[in-house]
Amino acid sequence: MEIATLKVSRSPITNKEYALPITHDDRQGIDNFLSLHPGKKVVVVQGLGFVGSVMGLVVANALTEEYAVIGIDLPSVSSYWKICSINEGVFPVIASDPKIDIYYKNALTKKNYYATYDPYAFSKANVVVVDINLDVKKKSSVNKDLEDYNVDLTPFKKAIESIGQNCKKDVLVLVETTVPPGTSQKIVRPILEESLQKRSLPINELKVGHSYERVMPGPKYIDSIQNFYRVFAGTDDKSTKAVESFLRTVIKTDEYPLTQLGNTNATEMAKVLENSFRAMNIAFMVEWSRFAEEAGVDIYEVVNAIRMRPTHKNIMLPGLGVGGYCLTKDPLLASWARMNLFGSEEKLQQSEKGVHINDKMPLYAFEYLQSQYKGLLEGKKVLLLGVSYLNDVGDTRYTPVESFYEQLESEGCEITLHDPHVLYWEEKDLWVSQDLNELMKEEYDFIIITTGHKNYRNNQQLIDQLLAKKPLFIYDTIGVFTNDEIKLLAKKHVMKVIGRGDL
Amino acid sequence: MEIATLKVSRSPITNKEYALPITHDDRQGIDNFLSLHPGKKVVVVQGLGFVGSVMGLVVANALTEEYAVIGIDLPSVSSYWKICSINEGVFPVIASDPKIDIYYKNALTKKNYYATYDPYAFSKANVVVVDINLDVKKKSSVNKDLEDYNVDLTPFKKAIESIGQNCKKDVLVLVETTVPPGTSQKIVRPILEESLQKRSLPINELKVGHSYERVMPGPKYIDSIQNFYRVFAGTDDKSTKAVESFLRTVIKTDEYPLTQLGNTNATEMAKVLENSFRAMNIAFMVEWSRFAEEAGVDIYEVVNAIRMRPTHKNIMLPGLGVGGYCLTKDPLLASWARMNLFGSEEKLQQSEKGVHINDKMPLYAFEYLQSQYKGLLEGKKVLLLGVSYLNDVGDTRYTPVESFYEQLESEGCEITLHDPHVLYWEEKDLWVSQDLNELMKEEYDFIIITTGHKNYRNNQQLIDQLLAKKPLFIYDTIGVFTNDEIKLLAKKHVMKVIGRGDL
Repeated sequence: MEIATLKVSRSPITNKEYALPITHDDRQGIDNFLSLHPGKKVVVVQGLGFVGSVMGLVVANALTEEYAVIGIDLPSVSSYWKICSINEGVFPVIASDPKIDIYYKNALTKKNYYATYDPYAFSKANVVVVDINLDVKKKSSVNKDLEDYNVDLTPFKKAIESIGQNCKKDVLVLVETTVPPGTSQKIVRPILEESLQKRSLPINELKVGHSYERVMPGPKYIDSIQNFYRVFAGTDDKSTKAVESFLRTVIKTDEYPLTQLGNTNATEMAKVLENSFRAMNIAFMVEWSRFAEEAGVDIYEVVNAIRMRPTHKNIMLPGLGVGGYCLTKDPLLASWARMNLFGSEEKLQQSEKGVHINDKMPLYAFEYLQSQYKGLLEGKKVLLLGVSYLNDVGDTRYTPVESFYEQLESEGCEITLHDPHVLYWEEKDLWVSQDLNELMKEEYDFIIITTGHKNYRNNQQLIDQLLAKKPLFIYDTIGVFTNDEIKLLAKKHVMKVIGRGDL
Repeated sequence: MEIATLKVSRSPITNKEYALPITHDDRQGIDNFLSLHPGKKVVVVQGLGFVGSVMGLVVANALTEEYAVIGIDLPSVSSYWKICSINEGVFPVIASDPKIDIYYKNALTKKNYYATYDPYAFSKANVVVVDINLDVKKKSSVNKDLEDYNVDLTPFKKAIESIGQNCKKDVLVLVETTVPPGTSQKIVRPILEESLQKRSLPINELKVGHSYERVMPGPKYIDSIQNFYRVFAGTDDKSTKAVESFLRTVIKTDEYPLTQLGNTNATEMAKVLENSFRAMNIAFMVEWSRFAEEAGVDIYEVVNAIRMRPTHKNIMLPGLGVGGYCLTKDPLLASWARMNLFGSEEKLQQSEKGVHINDKMPLYAFEYLQSQYKGLLEGKKVLLLGVSYLNDVGDTRYTPVESFYEQLESEGCEITLHDPHVLYWEEKDLWVSQDLNELMKEEYDFIIITTGHKNYRNNQQLIDQLLAKKPLFIYDTIGVFTNDEIKLLAKKHVMKVIGRGDL
């Protein structure tokens, strides 16, 4: 059958497979949806990823206005299932936040959240919220110097063009994507104006603004959008006012007042600066962790002592590495923008260096293991506790566990994975176990903590299970074990912790 | 007269001159002092600088014990006047903290704070608190690459030897000096043990510990010692207990609990890590300030928006540069220790780089001035507002104003200095005016804010005086002016602020 040769998009939640649509026409669907909501303002959310799908949900549950919300994404293998899933009543994101469920049920009842792939939706929009990705391609592997990276704006520009080819002349386009500073003014607005002019429409009613999200997938997913401080700006006064009015309808601005900045360069810079600050502070601790190991010092007790000073609260602890979608690329976006959008001859050297150092952290963690174990790793049984890049969250994007895993794999280790929040490790195409008790029945040569999930902390059962095992090598790359636990475990097992030279 | 050929030590407070003593024998003075305090424990504070002189005061006003306190320093041109001053009833530090006065009067009444230069004092000590300097020599100037620096421990070792040659066998030597990690264990303790052995004394009762101070000269000078968190450790259990007991008598440990770390390497590392964290976060903002200028962004509003996040509270603002005794050298002490005391082949690259970047900040501030002014600086009248390195404090040690001043001077500018907290700029041998109103009667080509003292902030009189002047170039390197003030001033004057491209 012909249909069998078509590409399919598979939902990792229901495992259901969807054949990609042959035509990209969903006018009927969109018109039907909107006919249920006469007179309501239409908000189109572009991009149905970790941010867009939930932003759509928040807009469908806006505080002071009833919106008809359309989520739009590409009918691609990786995205089409999300469109189908939303329309079939299965929210495409698994999260520990109970509000997700409540908000989604509410939207189902109100029937005010539709999803599509047809840019025709833009023609109906009063507001378009841009939540698509803007990626950085790192050209070299973790083992090499990665000063070489590339920012390709082509997919982002195409997405904006698709809005311009369809939108109303007075639409508000609100960019939430983390973009290189300068993008709203120098890229988004010019593309939209040019598109409108090609369609013989005036450009003076167009509104373009930027307000970055601070979404944290996890137990406070919804709150990280609705109950959190927002920074915003418009590309002109009209835009600024329109952005502010829109945000006031979806965010609890009485408790979390909006902060207006002077221009969109400033809001765009704020976001990447925020993440660069974080990335750089992690990178800063890498050398100090090694120094602590050399000097027989427990860097955890040192950092905790320092954190008592309010001026030093944000000093970081060591770890396996840095993952996620933001800290791994935002400093590079900023540096790229400085040179490519503002013509500076200098990059943001320190910020790039921070990413560089962080990208090498898992390699260091692996080398530390080698230096401490000394024996041959080939054929050894390894249990990795944690796959996601962040505690208590099932997000595996750019997880540092990936390159650590690959190092072990290339040495010929036999690796078992556990993560209470990750069923399926998409990037590696691997299934992950959630049953720690079952796994603990097996014997291993190495048990390595690779994510700092709550499940591994203050878990007496886990300690008991570890104590019942034959002597093995326990390696805590995150610092989840307490001093007392370490002392207990060290009586039987070899016990190593990154940043602790005093064991 | 013979006495006239002797070197003198001059008090910058009273201007009184003291001929340096010919013999270094003060047994009589010490014995007389101690005869006033029979049965009291004797604490000798070594070093009468910004830390030691005030630490002596705090110990003389201890909370739960009556000590006889002896401050000791060298009978040198730079220090001898402090010894005389303490014994004559004039405290050798000017500070805005009213507690200094109260504590000193109290010590005068109790007659329990004596000063000397005679190491004989150590023979009477139950506790010696080491508060001497340990400097880093930077070998190259601000214009050049300063990767080249040197840590010379000779003076520090000599000071410790002087204790060892005189001390009791069961003395507690508490090092408060910021030292390269490893110093208490690898340098102080061995020197003292060797000295005791040479004197045929046992070494098993000797106690050596480390607890770094977090002294902030300024309005909370005393509180920064007495009412603040302390980290401590001993070189063995006996030492640890002795340090803790002593600290409990002088610090309000019920409100500010002590933190004991695993060893003195850890406490020593904590101090330099604290300051490296701070130095590196300042360095991090240097590039971003420039990027903001290029992108027409006000970095101040961006940073203030970011600081709303608890995880980002410690992000820094731009400025003229980094000064003071700690941030300019502590990262180098740490890096030096890593290589020289722990045999690592790697320095703390990032931390060294942070110092490097910060040292160049005043040069950048000067270059920015040149790039914005464009004209010839020769013969121009310049008023610098602020000489000290820190807001509201009269401390000029390693102030970044120095190299900024030198740049202006080398261009042939005619420079006037104002600082409400600095009478005399010791390092440059210059007198500084405190009368801003008087200075504002003159006309200048440039008025440059170089320290962020309160006196320059929200000062309507200053704004009015500036507005009454002929058009000039106002350059705020710190960001003391508000947006409204900037708008007002910019109507008449050229107005430039570091990190603000939107003026």
